[in-house]
Amino acid sequence: MAKLFIVKIGGNIADDDDALKRFLTNVAAASVPMILVHGGGKIATKIGAQMGIVSQYSNGRRITDAATIDLVTMVYAGLVNKKMVAQLQALGCNAMGLTGADGNCLFAVKRPVKDIDFGYVGDIPEEAVNVNLLTSLIRQGITPVMAPLTHNRQGQLLNVNADTVAAALSVALSATFKVRLLYCFEKKGILTNVSDDNSVVQLLNRSYYQQMLSEKKLFDGILPKIDNAFAAIDKGVKEVLIGHADDLINNLTEHTTGTLIQ
Amino acid sequence: MAKLFIVKIGGNIADDDDALKRFLTNVAAASVPMILVHGGGKIATKIGAQMGIVSQYSNGRRITDAATIDLVTMVYAGLVNKKMVAQLQALGCNAMGLTGADGNCLFAVKRPVKDIDFGYVGDIPEEAVNVNLLTSLIRQGITPVMAPLTHNRQGQLLNVNADTVAAALSVALSATFKVRLLYCFEKKGILTNVSDDNSVVQLLNRSYYQQMLSEKKLFDGILPKIDNAFAAIDKGVKEVLIGHADDLINNLTEHTTGTLIQ
Repeated sequence: MAKLFIVKIGGNIADDDDALKRFLTNVAAASVPMILVHGGGKIATKIGAQMGIVSQYSNGRRITDAATIDLVTMVYAGLVNKKMVAQLQALGCNAMGLTGADGNCLFAVKRPVKDIDFGYVGDIPEEAVNVNLLTSLIRQGITPVMAPLTHNRQGQLLNVNADTVAAALSVALSATFKVRLLYCFEKKGILTNVSDDNSVVQLLNRSYYQQMLSEKKLFDGILPKIDNAFAAIDKGVKEVLIGHADDLINNLTEHTTGTLIQ
Repeated sequence: MAKLFIVKIGGNIADDDDALKRFLTNVAAASVPMILVHGGGKIATKIGAQMGIVSQYSNGRRITDAATIDLVTMVYAGLVNKKMVAQLQALGCNAMGLTGADGNCLFAVKRPVKDIDFGYVGDIPEEAVNVNLLTSLIRQGITPVMAPLTHNRQGQLLNVNADTVAAALSVALSATFKVRLLYCFEKKGILTNVSDDNSVVQLLNRSYYQQMLSEKKLFDGILPKIDNAFAAIDKGVKEVLIGHADDLINNLTEHTTGTLIQ
């Protein structure tokens, strides 16, 4: 079975020209087929402010109203995605930017309204990934670069969580490839001490995760990544690594740094 | 040789929800493979105004400075492109939005500075079209939807003229397909009398074009389309039609309305 890396790159990297360039240079130098999934929330917030769009949040999660879905469509699928694609092309990597709507490579369903209406936000059903199309692109030597945006198959664009997109792609493609899911961000991995960047957990299993949770050692933003990681492992993904974007190629892929989740 | 329609849809249609919906419904109902190329300049101007970006023009042509290339990347490759793709998907047409950077399907070179620096604007060399990729997508039943944006293969995005993109694709794909190039806009064709929407020229050849030019009968915006059309015919494109977006499927494809250029 051929290897495939599915790499989620966080908004803090996408928003930092130097960090992004280092990351993309590493991606282009890699010899393993990849799919990239990127965020871009910070850039969307900045451009939204220029346009007079102030996003509403509920428990730290953006409410995607009509103005906001247009905003994130412009920023994620336009600005962030196409700049990454052009840079990768210049580095010799045959990148192709996609949203889930393009070629229907991934669809979603609008999140049902319970206590809160999150607006144009999608959840990804199990059968949502177009494995044939993505496999065909990868076999043509193309590196898909996915924006965290898709459609409901009825004409409506939906905002989706990039961590979840990366996990869904990993699960669906695990039938065809030996998938390694990489969550790249600005920390070296999961930390036992949030104020010590070098306190990286090398191996995280469920019981240690529960222990860390009960000791309240984990910082907020990491929880969805870990939950997505365990769910992906349960559904057949070979391995999940969480670590620093700079370590992606030189270290993380051989797992000398970063956190391995099993 | 299989048929292929390459259809340029103007910004006035892309900016009009009802006209766009009629157009996309016709596209989805067509039985011939297509590539769409869209504009979006009016929407870019509107969003630019919201962001405080005022585009500069020289002889009616937009100067693409750093703020403007970001703006058109967001609007063309993001907002306009992905809304069209999502609508087409809902209509049962397997659309895939692309810029020229995606899969390097079309590149350009920055326009040399002579009297005027047009900024991040690209001209399309003859060998710029990735015929293999576009042919592969079409043969997978995919309808490419091209935004008028590409890259210089050195990491810089460039604004390109959508009429020219459509002509370049038509020329390059004429070796593989029997290509019909359609320029769809809000007029019924080339008019002998600009104030009479029904004074459509049915057939335009070079000598009649020269005559109309000398009689100053042609309205400004149409000249680049006609020049692109004749250049495309010279380079092997089977036929070029100019006409109303609403006539695309029902009439224009059988040429009962619109202007045929030969």
